[in-house]
Amino acid sequence: MRRTEKIRWIPLGGLNEIGKNMNVFECGNDAIILDCGMAFPDDDMPGIDCVIPDITYLHKIAEKIRGIVLTHGHEDHIGALPYVLKEFNVPVYGTRLTLGILKNKLKEHGILSASKLVNVEAGDTVKLGCFTAEFIHTNHSIADAVAIALHTPAGVILHTGDFKIDPTPIDGDMIDLARIGELGNKGVLALMSDSTNADRPGFTMSERSIGKTFENLFDKGANKRIIIATFASNVHRVQQIINSAHTHGRKVAVTGRSMVNVLNAAIELGYMSIPKNTLIDLDEVDRYPKDKIVIITTGSQGESMSALTRMAFSIHKKINIEPTDMVIISASPIPGNEKTVSNVVNELLKHGAEVVYERQDNVHVSGHACQQEQRIILALAKPKYFIPVHGEYRHLSRHKELALQTGIPSKNVFISDIGRVMELSSRSAKFVGTVPSGRVLVDGLGVGDVGNIVLRDRKHLSEDGIIIIVLSIEKSSSTCVSGPDVISRGFVYVRESEDLMESIRSISADIVEQCTSGTSLNWTTLKTRIKNDVGGFLYSKTKRRPMILPIIMEV
Amino acid sequence: MRRTEKIRWIPLGGLNEIGKNMNVFECGNDAIILDCGMAFPDDDMPGIDCVIPDITYLHKIAEKIRGIVLTHGHEDHIGALPYVLKEFNVPVYGTRLTLGILKNKLKEHGILSASKLVNVEAGDTVKLGCFTAEFIHTNHSIADAVAIALHTPAGVILHTGDFKIDPTPIDGDMIDLARIGELGNKGVLALMSDSTNADRPGFTMSERSIGKTFENLFDKGANKRIIIATFASNVHRVQQIINSAHTHGRKVAVTGRSMVNVLNAAIELGYMSIPKNTLIDLDEVDRYPKDKIVIITTGSQGESMSALTRMAFSIHKKINIEPTDMVIISASPIPGNEKTVSNVVNELLKHGAEVVYERQDNVHVSGHACQQEQRIILALAKPKYFIPVHGEYRHLSRHKELALQTGIPSKNVFISDIGRVMELSSRSAKFVGTVPSGRVLVDGLGVGDVGNIVLRDRKHLSEDGIIIIVLSIEKSSSTCVSGPDVISRGFVYVRESEDLMESIRSISADIVEQCTSGTSLNWTTLKTRIKNDVGGFLYSKTKRRPMILPIIMEV
Repeated sequence: MRRTEKIRWIPLGGLNEIGKNMNVFECGNDAIILDCGMAFPDDDMPGIDCVIPDITYLHKIAEKIRGIVLTHGHEDHIGALPYVLKEFNVPVYGTRLTLGILKNKLKEHGILSASKLVNVEAGDTVKLGCFTAEFIHTNHSIADAVAIALHTPAGVILHTGDFKIDPTPIDGDMIDLARIGELGNKGVLALMSDSTNADRPGFTMSERSIGKTFENLFDKGANKRIIIATFASNVHRVQQIINSAHTHGRKVAVTGRSMVNVLNAAIELGYMSIPKNTLIDLDEVDRYPKDKIVIITTGSQGESMSALTRMAFSIHKKINIEPTDMVIISASPIPGNEKTVSNVVNELLKHGAEVVYERQDNVHVSGHACQQEQRIILALAKPKYFIPVHGEYRHLSRHKELALQTGIPSKNVFISDIGRVMELSSRSAKFVGTVPSGRVLVDGLGVGDVGNIVLRDRKHLSEDGIIIIVLSIEKSSSTCVSGPDVISRGFVYVRESEDLMESIRSISADIVEQCTSGTSLNWTTLKTRIKNDVGGFLYSKTKRRPMILPIIMEV
Repeated sequence: MRRTEKIRWIPLGGLNEIGKNMNVFECGNDAIILDCGMAFPDDDMPGIDCVIPDITYLHKIAEKIRGIVLTHGHEDHIGALPYVLKEFNVPVYGTRLTLGILKNKLKEHGILSASKLVNVEAGDTVKLGCFTAEFIHTNHSIADAVAIALHTPAGVILHTGDFKIDPTPIDGDMIDLARIGELGNKGVLALMSDSTNADRPGFTMSERSIGKTFENLFDKGANKRIIIATFASNVHRVQQIINSAHTHGRKVAVTGRSMVNVLNAAIELGYMSIPKNTLIDLDEVDRYPKDKIVIITTGSQGESMSALTRMAFSIHKKINIEPTDMVIISASPIPGNEKTVSNVVNELLKHGAEVVYERQDNVHVSGHACQQEQRIILALAKPKYFIPVHGEYRHLSRHKELALQTGIPSKNVFISDIGRVMELSSRSAKFVGTVPSGRVLVDGLGVGDVGNIVLRDRKHLSEDGIIIIVLSIEKSSSTCVSGPDVISRGFVYVRESEDLMESIRSISADIVEQCTSGTSLNWTTLKTRIKNDVGGFLYSKTKRRPMILPIIMEV
């Protein structure tokens, strides 16, 4: 083994942010990509559908990319793949459920048949150039999640993916701590570990504990119809709901497009076992007594067009919420969604339904490790270098503190950032530069055509609207032959502000008069003066700064 | 006493929402208003500064309004007063600190000298027509808060305002439970009680417990400069910080406009006791060793231009964050502010500072009663009718459950809504109709000139931007003499989308050609066709729906 070989690690997403997780590892003439996720847009990105990593750098190393390895099937780990595969059609390695979910996405983008997807399972290794990727079973809020141990010429780099330690998981096996410990004993060069819950002490509860909660709630709501909202991808959660329904003699119907899709994929791939005669069509719900029904639905985040939201606001075509319903929201609001979830809860309660949600009962557990689990992984892997990943700075720095507690010297712990290049050898780790990185905004079919200028305009337009001042000038005579006309949108209710509109018109007309009376007509001056004078006037009258757009037509 | 007299209660804000608390009570020829607050705008109200209640109804009863009584000086209880007083200049009754804070607001609006402000203190009663308002001392996160017992011809209506039960408050006295109990023994017709924390079991911690936390943190950070962010109006919190600073031999400097304003008002009115030689100017901070300094600042919600945010992002003129700083954020994020607070924490940590915030220590307590306190008030007041107020539906309905637990029959508990009129007599309580109510948006100097149409346009503009298509048509000949020109804002980065812009232009030109070639030129048809065809084209190309604005100039 060429122990002196150097590995370059370049995170393109997932550091100092939540989501769009993506890593590049390079060694000599080989490069591999670990995960390829998207992020949800922030409040300051109106109209944006999703955010993907800037992959400019990949063009530089295009020839070297041997493949993409995936840890699990959540959007923040696979959501950018359709965009990346369109530019770099390299093989993708993932477990069955991960690829099952990915296939749906690639189909929607029309590139499924052209893509090279390779199924692996926990325990497998795949040789990609001088890298060997080993897939290690983990626990997470989606089935079939893996950590990846990269065997490189410089040593083993262990990336946990998203994980928790669940000694009593639904799919049988705890995260493969034995293998992590074995790698630790042999020597791990660097550990990259999930920091999402680094500010939470203790241990994350087992997914199985939710099963007990469901049992209790099913007993409590024995006379009620039960409606449960959760994340579509959490097949273990859905399995537990179906189990409880079965033992309580209830039929299960499913609503919400993504819930139906994932459920079908999971059943097809054998990730769920559905007792006979349990699943019914949503149309059949009314044929059974209320207390013999469970409805599993999307909408646990209060998403505006989701099935649960439509039920709450009485616009669901098939389900009406009634006082005999018990609605369970089996999820925590993702930061930023608190208000939409709260609105849905309020509406459900107004129908008289009983609503069980986060604050009150153990209806949700996290899929990420808390501090004690993070310490265990650190202690097992005993890495020479530790690099906290997946989280904002506050999570990364807290995870760093935990690493110091386990005895890793401070000089061997690195908090990095997207675009920073770290060079690792068996003897050293250091930052050696940066590459282009950042966010690319996806808006409809447009990828990257909305940037800071467009966003700045959208924000400006959204806050104070736009005033358009349009006029026609006869070229030869430099006289205004039409207008100025004033049109506004999003500024003020025009019918009740006719005086204001007329003032804008007359200020503009005066400026046109002055600017066209001289010998040389300077359009830039004319536009600038209209902008400034109308802007100043409006600010003095309204304390608002709408976008002012003078348009001069030449006839 | 005319025991058969009927009282009308009309909430104009504060039910099924957080904020803009406002109530009208009417009896015969008399009406009084209890509180007059504003609310913060939601995400779906871009550009809006604040939201105030719709007071259309007050014009109907203008002659009857005898005065406004205030429970405390928070924005959600007094923030709409400047707008209401401009239309109805009636006397305002409040405790000293409440009026002290109100005075600053009225001054900014230029109506202080015209306003009639009447100081009261806990224990006082004020006769307002056939109502007698009795002010009862309570505990809350601002000093000088009161509940109000309205003695009416139909009986006593007790409104708690915002409250908690703090047996060890900073200003000496617990909420006057004795008086509430006395009223209860004599008979309370109706209780209206704060529901904000109705989904939290147990008891809210005493404000004094924060003092212990500060002591511990001052010990822990003995070698550091200490910077503490909290709500300006929480004078007890600020007092405790100053006390800790004093006992640890530190000087205190204050930054942030509202912090400086409230501190000055509180000192002037005698609500704070500042040890000699403790307060220093912010400019003097650098004259002392770091470990002899405490800085109290605004910005505990991560507000964009607040002092703490400016420090975090290195744009504060006087304070640079350093690794020798301990920053304490003594507040919880108000729902919706989680992300901005998180951003500030991340930036502070990047400077190497130690940051203490909500999750980790007892650095904040709520100002609102939890379930056990709410039960105590219910049990003391023993009201005939109970009406939960201040909260979303989920809080009101949870508070109703607590009332049922204390033995109030379900038929005597009413969850109301803004604009609903309830008629109360000594023997009955019932809903008897509705009055106009809702939200009025304040944007700059405009009050109510931004409504749903403008908001809808702002939202549309913010999501996909605007495309303006402008052309000039010679009237007599019906020929296009200039344009069509295409201008866009917030849609796409134009320099990289020239083909798209050119396509829009040519589609529009074709339509103009077709529409002007016939005999009669119909402008509405022309505009509609441009809108539809360009809209359809853009959706097919981009899956976006920008606002399309055809402008036709007639020359």
